[in-house]
Amino acid sequence: MPQENIIYRPIGHVRSAVKRRRPPGDWSSELSVIELEESYVDGLVGLEAGQRLLIIFHLHLAAPGPLLQHPRGDTREALRGVFALRSPQRPNPIGSTEVELLEIRGSILRVRGLDALDGTPLLDIKPA
Amino acid sequence: MPQENIIYRPIGHVRSAVKRRRPPGDWSSELSVIELEESYVDGLVGLEAGQRLLIIFHLHLAAPGPLLQHPRGDTREALRGVFALRSPQRPNPIGSTEVELLEIRGSILRVRGLDALDGTPLLDIKPA
Repeated sequence: MPQENIIYRPIGHVRSAVKRRRPPGDWSSELSVIELEESYVDGLVGLEAGQRLLIIFHLHLAAPGPLLQHPRGDTREALRGVFALRSPQRPNPIGSTEVELLEIRGSILRVRGLDALDGTPLLDIKPA
Repeated sequence: MPQENIIYRPIGHVRSAVKRRRPPGDWSSELSVIELEESYVDGLVGLEAGQRLLIIFHLHLAAPGPLLQHPRGDTREALRGVFALRSPQRPNPIGSTEVELLEIRGSILRVRGLDALDGTPLLDIKPA
C-alpha cells in the first residue's frame, strides 16, 4: 500500500509557562491556556467548565526516536516498544491528554493537566 | 501565526467487517484487526493481551462538516459545537478510541471496541 501523506493544520496553540522540554514528570496540576483560532469559536458551543476534555496536539519539538526506548529515559529500566510508552519520540509525534476544563472565554480555554509546551500546535478537542 | 502544515504517515491500517459509514451507535463489542507495518513491530514490545490501548487514526472517509452539528445527526437535538461532540466531521479528522487488546501476533493486533472502518489509516498506539 502506498504511504500516503496525511495533512492536518493547527486549529490553535497552547500557552504554557513550560517553554522547553523538561524531564518526564507529573503534569496533572499544570495550568495552561489553549488559544483556539477565532474562526473555530462556534465549535466550542456546549462545552462547560468542569468537563473533562481530550486534547490532541502536535509534539512539535519532539526529536525522532528509536522504536525501543527506556521508560522515562531511565536506563535502569528495560527497553520497551514506543507503542507501550507515552514517550514524545514517536513515529507520528501526536500527543493526546485528558484535561479538566477550568474556564472558557470566547476562543480561550483554561485547562489543568495538559502536558504540552508553550507554542504547541493544537489539532483537536473532544469530550473525554 | 502562519498556518503550517503538519504531515503524518500511516503506520498501519485497520481491518474490520465494517466497510462503510453507518449510523452512530455502539461499537464497544466490535472486533477488528490492526495491521501494523512490519517495520514498526519492535514498537510493540511490552504490550500484552488484556491491556487497554488508545488508538489514534485518520478518519479517511469523513466529509468536511460544519462547526455546529446535531448530536449523532439527530435533528431533534440542539446544535452543538464539533469540539463538544465525537462526530467524525471535524476540522482535523482524527479519531481517538480506547480499546481492549485481545491478542498480539507479530505485527497484527486483535482489538475490541474500535470504531474505525475497514482500511482506516493508523496514526499511533499508546497505552491508555
